[in-house]
Amino acid sequence: MPENETRQPVRLAHLDAPSYSEWVSRGGATVILPAGAFEQHGPHLPMGTDALLSTAIAEVVAARCGAKVAEPLSYGHKSQQKSGGGNHLPGTISLDAAALIAQARCVIVGFLAQGVQNLVVLNGHYENYQFLYEAADLALGDLRAAGGGGPEPTVLLLSYWDYVSDQALAEVYPEGFPGWDIEHGGVLETSLMLHLRPELVQMGRAVSHPAAQLPRFDRLPVVPERTPSTGCLSAPDGSDARKGELLFSQVTQDLATDLRQELEIA
Amino acid sequence: MPENETRQPVRLAHLDAPSYSEWVSRGGATVILPAGAFEQHGPHLPMGTDALLSTAIAEVVAARCGAKVAEPLSYGHKSQQKSGGGNHLPGTISLDAAALIAQARCVIVGFLAQGVQNLVVLNGHYENYQFLYEAADLALGDLRAAGGGGPEPTVLLLSYWDYVSDQALAEVYPEGFPGWDIEHGGVLETSLMLHLRPELVQMGRAVSHPAAQLPRFDRLPVVPERTPSTGCLSAPDGSDARKGELLFSQVTQDLATDLRQELEIA
Amino acid sequence: MPENETRQPVRLAHLDAPSYSEWVSRGGATVILPAGAFEQHGPHLPMGTDALLSTAIAEVVAARCGAKVAEPLSYGHKSQQKSGGGNHLPGTISLDAAALIAQARCVIVGFLAQGVQNLVVLNGHYENYQFLYEAADLALGDLRAAGGGGPEPTVLLLSYWDYVSDQALAEVYPEGFPGWDIEHGGVLETSLMLHLRPELVQMGRAVSHPAAQLPRFDRLPVVPERTPSTGCLSAPDGSDARKGELLFSQVTQDLATDLRQELEIA
Amino acid sequence: MPENETRQPVRLAHLDAPSYSEWVSRGGATVILPAGAFEQHGPHLPMGTDALLSTAIAEVVAARCGAKVAEPLSYGHKSQQKSGGGNHLPGTISLDAAALIAQARCVIVGFLAQGVQNLVVLNGHYENYQFLYEAADLALGDLRAAGGGGPEPTVLLLSYWDYVSDQALAEVYPEGFPGWDIEHGGVLETSLMLHLRPELVQMGRAVSHPAAQLPRFDRLPVVPERTPSTGCLSAPDGSDARKGELLFSQVTQDLATDLRQELEIA
Amino acid sequence: MPENETRQPVRLAHLDAPSYSEWVSRGGATVILPAGAFEQHGPHLPMGTDALLSTAIAEVVAARCGAKVAEPLSYGHKSQQKSGGGNHLPGTISLDAAALIAQARCVIVGFLAQGVQNLVVLNGHYENYQFLYEAADLALGDLRAAGGGGPEPTVLLLSYWDYVSDQALAEVYPEGFPGWDIEHGGVLETSLMLHLRPELVQMGRAVSHPAAQLPRFDRLPVVPERTPSTGCLSAPDGSDARKGELLFSQVTQDLATDLRQELEIA
Amino acid sequence: MPENETRQPVRLAHLDAPSYSEWVSRGGATVILPAGAFEQHGPHLPMGTDALLSTAIAEVVAARCGAKVAEPLSYGHKSQQKSGGGNHLPGTISLDAAALIAQARCVIVGFLAQGVQNLVVLNGHYENYQFLYEAADLALGDLRAAGGGGPEPTVLLLSYWDYVSDQALAEVYPEGFPGWDIEHGGVLETSLMLHLRPELVQMGRAVSHPAAQLPRFDRLPVVPERTPSTGCLSAPDGSDARKGELLFSQVTQDLATDLRQELEIA
Repeated sequence: MPENETRQPVRLAHLDAPSYSEWVSRGGATVILPAGAFEQHGPHLPMGTDALLSTAIAEVVAARCGAKVAEPLSYGHKSQQKSGGGNHLPGTISLDAAALIAQARCVIVGFLAQGVQNLVVLNGHYENYQFLYEAADLALGDLRAAGGGGPEPTVLLLSYWDYVSDQALAEVYPEGFPGWDIEHGGVLETSLMLHLRPELVQMGRAVSHPAAQLPRFDRLPVVPERTPSTGCLSAPDGSDARKGELLFSQVTQDLATDLRQELEIA
Repeated sequence: MPENETRQPVRLAHLDAPSYSEWVSRGGATVILPAGAFEQHGPHLPMGTDALLSTAIAEVVAARCGAKVAEPLSYGHKSQQKSGGGNHLPGTISLDAAALIAQARCVIVGFLAQGVQNLVVLNGHYENYQFLYEAADLALGDLRAAGGGGPEPTVLLLSYWDYVSDQALAEVYPEGFPGWDIEHGGVLETSLMLHLRPELVQMGRAVSHPAAQLPRFDRLPVVPERTPSTGCLSAPDGSDARKGELLFSQVTQDLATDLRQELEIA
Repeated sequence: MPENETRQPVRLAHLDAPSYSEWVSRGGATVILPAGAFEQHGPHLPMGTDALLSTAIAEVVAARCGAKVAEPLSYGHKSQQKSGGGNHLPGTISLDAAALIAQARCVIVGFLAQGVQNLVVLNGHYENYQFLYEAADLALGDLRAAGGGGPEPTVLLLSYWDYVSDQALAEVYPEGFPGWDIEHGGVLETSLMLHLRPELVQMGRAVSHPAAQLPRFDRLPVVPERTPSTGCLSAPDGSDARKGELLFSQVTQDLATDLRQELEIA
Repeated sequence: MPENETRQPVRLAHLDAPSYSEWVSRGGATVILPAGAFEQHGPHLPMGTDALLSTAIAEVVAARCGAKVAEPLSYGHKSQQKSGGGNHLPGTISLDAAALIAQARCVIVGFLAQGVQNLVVLNGHYENYQFLYEAADLALGDLRAAGGGGPEPTVLLLSYWDYVSDQALAEVYPEGFPGWDIEHGGVLETSLMLHLRPELVQMGRAVSHPAAQLPRFDRLPVVPERTPSTGCLSAPDGSDARKGELLFSQVTQDLATDLRQELEIA
Repeated sequence: MPENETRQPVRLAHLDAPSYSEWVSRGGATVILPAGAFEQHGPHLPMGTDALLSTAIAEVVAARCGAKVAEPLSYGHKSQQKSGGGNHLPGTISLDAAALIAQARCVIVGFLAQGVQNLVVLNGHYENYQFLYEAADLALGDLRAAGGGGPEPTVLLLSYWDYVSDQALAEVYPEGFPGWDIEHGGVLETSLMLHLRPELVQMGRAVSHPAAQLPRFDRLPVVPERTPSTGCLSAPDGSDARKGELLFSQVTQDLATDLRQELEIA
Repeated sequence: MPENETRQPVRLAHLDAPSYSEWVSRGGATVILPAGAFEQHGPHLPMGTDALLSTAIAEVVAARCGAKVAEPLSYGHKSQQKSGGGNHLPGTISLDAAALIAQARCVIVGFLAQGVQNLVVLNGHYENYQFLYEAADLALGDLRAAGGGGPEPTVLLLSYWDYVSDQALAEVYPEGFPGWDIEHGGVLETSLMLHLRPELVQMGRAVSHPAAQLPRFDRLPVVPERTPSTGCLSAPDGSDARKGELLFSQVTQDLATDLRQELEIA
């Protein structure tokens, strides 16, 4: 890696266009697009948690892979009661499917049409995933329709929690992992935020309560009482910055390894 | 204003949901939604300039008005040659109209449906404006269709440069203002960035060249040669942080005054 | 329940309109909408497997609850490599998100606007779920916009495999359950089909092979080699009609119990 | 035709993917896509009549031509008063234009992109036709945009009643054919159903009444009184299974002849 | 009717807004929206024929009923081979379904939301009809969603040829009416144009040829040879202005009578 | 230019298809598409003013350049208070963005796909512009997706007032030009109409009033009082046919010159 690149910002919004263009023209460029949400995360976490986390992960992973980070998708798909407490809660501002798909599709097409080789969608909000997948599929169709030569580009999609290792889970949840489905505003997100953005966490406002008991179906309109009054599906009891550091370090390392291997990048 | 509010972040993504909800329930809440773009801005400015500027202005204006700032729309409508150099340029990643309208519509509906009284769209990318207007119009229709009581909410839309005073222009352009149409990557944006984010400006890479001479029509596909090779429509010659401070101070002050008066807020 | 109703078909397509109308006007009517796909299921199962299974389950559950079954959504969202082998495979004919959402939205609105109290979307194709959720959410918004009195209707959404009990899994997979993610064309679907539609299963064509090893991310375009050549993500080894009967019996019973309890129906 | 093919199901949903794929790869494959509706058909016919009829016709025609039948489009476009009694009637659940077009477009693209040579849309619900036509036109555009080699595929569209011969009409309506426009729930559909699915017809519930007198214009919202209270536009007086057999036999024969000739298939 | 109204233009585009507004506020206002196409009509008729004819009929009918005429929809849905020769022909510029529906929907909503009581869509291009119907249905849904008081508005839809009487047909086609399906560029349209806009008809360029023989199905892509080389489906042999006057007079009279009676207008 | 061409109508709707086709096949054909609106223009101007003016200009320009004129887009995007008084005013019937984009996109694609070399969108309604731009951009993408050979076509877009020279402004507004933003129903439009369509102007109904004072932002819903009660943003005081002739002559001449030069046409 040439010296001057190390001084370049990993965030594309902070980079100038000719430098970006030069980087892309070298071939094999990888852009990571973080996806988040604007969603209530209980009284102790900020509403931007999902985008803050996915962007922070993206930046570190990108730095390790010679990749760059696009501006995050800050608004996500409608929060579901079984994964985010529900879209009816104050502080949750969501996109419908068409809006999220259209936005992601345009951004993916945009980068790939300019010669970016790999576009990695790094998701931090459960409800987004299938719509981001659709966006990627449609975007690749757009590129085929537009023609053009060069090697076919690649899109990868992933949610960062799929990279949490069993060992990390065992350390973070010494009494047993309660399941991803109720990890909203709970120990994982809170610990990560305490590690990455402690000034935005108000542990003094955190509330201890049993994990939500949710049915096997989804119901619309939701029965509001099924969401704990905090808006969290499990309490952040036992969260700390050390656990956050552990999770962050493990996930970013494994993710970077996976990307380098899959995309054959530096 | 109670003391504790002054310590609350002006950026809603950094605030917790119960505090947001409590703030909204007091009535008269105003949210500012900055709109930008991901667009080449020549060799000396970063690609995220438009969103960085509109967000920075939004934050200061919001702090003065007791308003809050939503996460910016980081991607904008297609850059036009006569206002942004053209959508064909590397480093410009754009949304099509449907994507931008859909995204802004959902965000505006989301806040207003939760009881926010005023939503101010603060635009920093010329090509966005009419699509944001459409989004606001459709959003208000959505709210009417959804029914619900309470006072009818208000949407304001503006582009920050419409608040630059003649006096400020005279100081910033002592040899005469060349016109907003070629203010892309020029003295205004550069000076504002030098004031607000000097670490992201590389004046050593700035290039002096005559302003672009563009026809009275738009042509598609564009004739690339009509855009100066820097991607700027006018050169940033004479930009400095002092001019940026002057512009920023004047615009934020006048804008805050306008909002307070129009929206009858603090 | 009057005697003649017991002779009424549970499938609405086989019922006449005045009988349907009379049934709805009694109040509390529940319609189950099965969702499936047209998707390759390896050499031993038919391409219509997902809709055949969800419809068969719907019919038995409906009969137990006094509900009726709408015509299934026979085409589903794009098969993903990690859950269905991939959309590139011959024999997989899929809808894009907009088409699936629009279709389900219209059907849900249609029934609820006519006074059906509960609409249960019974999903049999993993990739459909989030789009059906969006459809239900939009449909309820449509109904609110259309106004009208009466009690607010309810939509439930579920995938039938979420009702398979741990005990049933233990019996069906005596050597340990390999996980839902690779259950495509495997023991569960094959056993259910052997129980319900044995004439459509060709066990002599089934192929034994190790379960697919798939990465933690999705990749588009897919790397075809990652899908076993049969198109199944796990082999149907050990499938039999008895296991199918066990699964079918347990799932339909638990599902019927859940619906009766949640919807307060007979 | 090899012997084993004769045992293959004509319904693609009942066929396995490798057999389908092998069949397509032989070249010249023809898939028939039946389109119907979920629509009230008076007190004596089931709501699924249109899809039942078009599917039954498709299956026999396919068997004669070496074609296969895709899963029917079970929901159709909004019933019009002058052809189906009106969309306001209980038991009529319809798609709007966008939903129907999107669904049919995806299905048509799906088959043709996999190498199916001919896709025949066999319509059984008057109101569908123009939307199916649009879907076919857009689908062919999609295929052109996606590129790919091979011979250009063909789409045929037809409504089965356009194949009823004058001679058959004379036999079925000995007192003179009253016109297709009021053939909803009348002698044609009833006789066909008595032939094909007698268990779903309740002739004891049929009501004799004069044919509807409808204006030369359409009016929205409809004037409900213009539709006879049965929902049928003409009474099924004189329907019988023999007439149904006659119609079915004549139509399937002529249709198969037309397809073989037009598509140059077996 | 006050004297000054008689001098008001029947074409709304020629009227001023306050006069329009005053007229609407009197109640019972009827606006006729002509729909046409831009479509080849053989060598002797202009490409704007469909809109010219529907607009001319609308103007005379409106004058007789105290109605007004909105600007016509000048572009129509894709020409079909069996009714207009086909969309592949030079000189045929068409809208797709979404564009036509969206345009008509907005115009219909626009007038009705301002208090116009009756909106009559007067169609002059066969392929438009179902899409205009969809537009009207969606528009009425939009109005319901927007709420508002006042009497529910009415939309009528019709194609002008449905008003041609049997007697007129007998006079215009003394050797027998060949059917509406091949009336494209034939005697009806040509005679009407000779009566209404003789300066736009070039009878010297008309070509005599047998009527098109078209199959019972539609085929896409079309087989171009099935359309006569003139683009007309039947020849204009025997057209004259007198027949046009007869048709025009009869249709406008019957249509005006129907509207007055149905809409209870003057 | 052959003699017979000079007698051909400049309006394509009045031309026959073979003549059009022959003209296109000569190469370099230019079609001008006028865009207008249906919008209140005060008590003295008709609601169709914008389309009347853009079409009149298009016809003269086309005649000078050997171009042809397509049927105008008669309905425009929503009138904004700061440029057209507002969309709430009686007599303003508007399209939403999707409808306008879709319509213009289809028309542009239609002409260019048939071999027209240049399509000039000549706008006469401020609010349309960005949506027409989007339509042109999407249309060119459609053409690329459709493939096909030949030289790449060109789209030009312009608003006619951008061609008014400073000298003409000085003559028309001897006391100083008040700005384009309040030129709605004012001296420019009124004078042009007095020159071109005097029979449609009612100067006796014109009202003198100060120009509107409008804020730097847009507000939705609008504050109706900010629009003068006439609906005009400035009064037509001093309008006359001579000024109209001057403007018309200057604009059409400069526009024709620009087109000939840019498009290298006759």
